[in-house]
Amino acid sequence: MIKKYYLLSPGPTPVPDNVLSAAAEPIIHHRTPEFSDIFMKVSEGLKYVFETEQDVFVLTSSGTGAMETAVANILCPGDKVININGGKFGERWGKICRAYGVDVREIVLEWGDPFTKEQLAEELKANPETKAVFATLSETSSGTIYDIQGYGEVLTESDAILVVDGISGLGATPCPMDEWNVDIMVAGSQKSFMIPPGLAYISFSLKAWNLVEKSTLPKFYFDAKQYRKNLKKSTTPYTPAISLIIQQKNALDIIKNLGLEKLFEHHRILGDATRDGVKALGLKLLSKRPGNILTAVKVPEGIDGLKLVKTMQGKYRAYIAGGQDPYKGKIFRIAHLGYMGGFDIIIALTALEMTLSELGFDFERGSSIKAAETILKENWE
Amino acid sequence: MIKKYYLLSPGPTPVPDNVLSAAAEPIIHHRTPEFSDIFMKVSEGLKYVFETEQDVFVLTSSGTGAMETAVANILCPGDKVININGGKFGERWGKICRAYGVDVREIVLEWGDPFTKEQLAEELKANPETKAVFATLSETSSGTIYDIQGYGEVLTESDAILVVDGISGLGATPCPMDEWNVDIMVAGSQKSFMIPPGLAYISFSLKAWNLVEKSTLPKFYFDAKQYRKNLKKSTTPYTPAISLIIQQKNALDIIKNLGLEKLFEHHRILGDATRDGVKALGLKLLSKRPGNILTAVKVPEGIDGLKLVKTMQGKYRAYIAGGQDPYKGKIFRIAHLGYMGGFDIIIALTALEMTLSELGFDFERGSSIKAAETILKENWE
Repeated sequence: MIKKYYLLSPGPTPVPDNVLSAAAEPIIHHRTPEFSDIFMKVSEGLKYVFETEQDVFVLTSSGTGAMETAVANILCPGDKVININGGKFGERWGKICRAYGVDVREIVLEWGDPFTKEQLAEELKANPETKAVFATLSETSSGTIYDIQGYGEVLTESDAILVVDGISGLGATPCPMDEWNVDIMVAGSQKSFMIPPGLAYISFSLKAWNLVEKSTLPKFYFDAKQYRKNLKKSTTPYTPAISLIIQQKNALDIIKNLGLEKLFEHHRILGDATRDGVKALGLKLLSKRPGNILTAVKVPEGIDGLKLVKTMQGKYRAYIAGGQDPYKGKIFRIAHLGYMGGFDIIIALTALEMTLSELGFDFERGSSIKAAETILKENWE
Repeated sequence: MIKKYYLLSPGPTPVPDNVLSAAAEPIIHHRTPEFSDIFMKVSEGLKYVFETEQDVFVLTSSGTGAMETAVANILCPGDKVININGGKFGERWGKICRAYGVDVREIVLEWGDPFTKEQLAEELKANPETKAVFATLSETSSGTIYDIQGYGEVLTESDAILVVDGISGLGATPCPMDEWNVDIMVAGSQKSFMIPPGLAYISFSLKAWNLVEKSTLPKFYFDAKQYRKNLKKSTTPYTPAISLIIQQKNALDIIKNLGLEKLFEHHRILGDATRDGVKALGLKLLSKRPGNILTAVKVPEGIDGLKLVKTMQGKYRAYIAGGQDPYKGKIFRIAHLGYMGGFDIIIALTALEMTLSELGFDFERGSSIKAAETILKENWE
């Protein structure tokens, strides 16, 4: 059989054909009115997705580069911060902060566990010198969504700012930056933004800019003030990834035409279908607060989790993700993020059923499809 | 008339059609054997162009990101360095160093002036605590080539390391990293590497790695040790710009098939043709040591330099570059870099003649073409 490749990972995600083909157009120079026009359309489109009145800057880097931009631009050595660390990407905030000599109060959660706004309020009370709280909208390692809205409420009462890694979540699940009092929002191009990896996005609230003015940590390529200054001239401080920006313009056209509300609903439906599908097989979710970005599923007892992922990826070419770090072999993760359709979930679940059957797991063949199909059919319009 | 767009700037440069189209292929995941295979071919190809036995790391960033990587990985606050600053990009080394609290002995040259190895030896004698010397292979703002080979000779006698910005020069003009004792070499994808902007490349000598081990400057996204560790696993520490890396594999195939010697000779011929062409018009070069990457030409007296560039770019769509900073309006720059052919020089010179004629400059029409054509014809094979 011809074995087609299906990208079902939480980044990179599938790119629409007309967005892919835009990268094959001849390269234009970045210091031209033609490019500036495209660039400013991207900037405006990003503001729409971020739901902010503030500038959104385009960095040529991975999402991690934008996370570092947040840290290096707002803090000074020895500053105290709180990090809500719920998994591999939450952990990264702490690592970046420590690389810069920042004093991190690290709240290490069990992967998949929630962290409430009341808990945050207590932490802030106990740590009144906190300059910033680092949080994750959608923790990709566990498929968990955190209560960013609640954290924003707590922090309006505080001098501390709220810094959110929205890399895998923004654009797929609600997180209106201005309305929810997010002070720094970070995103990445290869997630709900529907283009290949290589660009990262970041925006600062006025409260965050006040910290930028006082920050003494060293930075150059990631110096936010340079991006702000150059955006006023409709450009970037350094040569940007031109082809990716052109792709982002096309993908933002798709996103704007759909509208954020519909996109959130789309991801909600795919999330529901996936969750109902795996539950119908008797499988359990890792997360106590699962999001609509990806679904992390516990490998059932007696099944070799590494082999499960390897079979899905290698034999069926359904490229789901395995577990990371302590959860390697213990979970697998099916993404339903970005430019995916309802039938992509059916592909994922069918490949999963075929794999589970091969590994000797006992279940009723077709049951996950039945459950997912029901959700998709009810919501199809 | 249909006005075709001709990219004649020193970055971005034209991308071969089959390299452009590679970006339109569906995105594959970066943690797969398929991608690792491509990635390692790129790594090997980069070693070929760098002419080094050392690892070459792939960063998703502009060239400036790789420059910062050099600085942040080898130095400590207060370290003394020498910067050979011959223009806008030489100046950038100093800016990055100062952003990190490094003590810079800045040698500010007139744009286009050479700096000899004897001068460097004197500077080192006067500044014996120097940890690193920052230099530029090809200064894009002035079209000047510096004596990297000579600097390398001087520095073998010293504990200081040689850090070279090869962003616009490497792959187009000789600079064998190992043979010339370059300790850190930096390059960018949108120059002789024949792909769009978005990737930067960096390699460290063993002498440079000794400094990396002692460096205390903060870094995370640009932490060289993370790139070294992950390259051993055939991958990158953070999600890379997958589509650009696939393009780079295809472009490196072209580069390796041609061979470095032929590429250097190709650029030499285009450089000679361009220089002879503009000289035939009675124009003068800015640089006293012009390279084969781009030719910076003085705007003749009585001619409006800004209008010249604007006419070339806007009316004739021959996208040359203007002068930067103090040379804005005083020079223009014709690139002959990367995937350009001999006839691209003819286009540049014809557009230049048409523009000069329009601006009232007195010259013999066709004279630049005659001169350039002679060089091209003599060398065509």
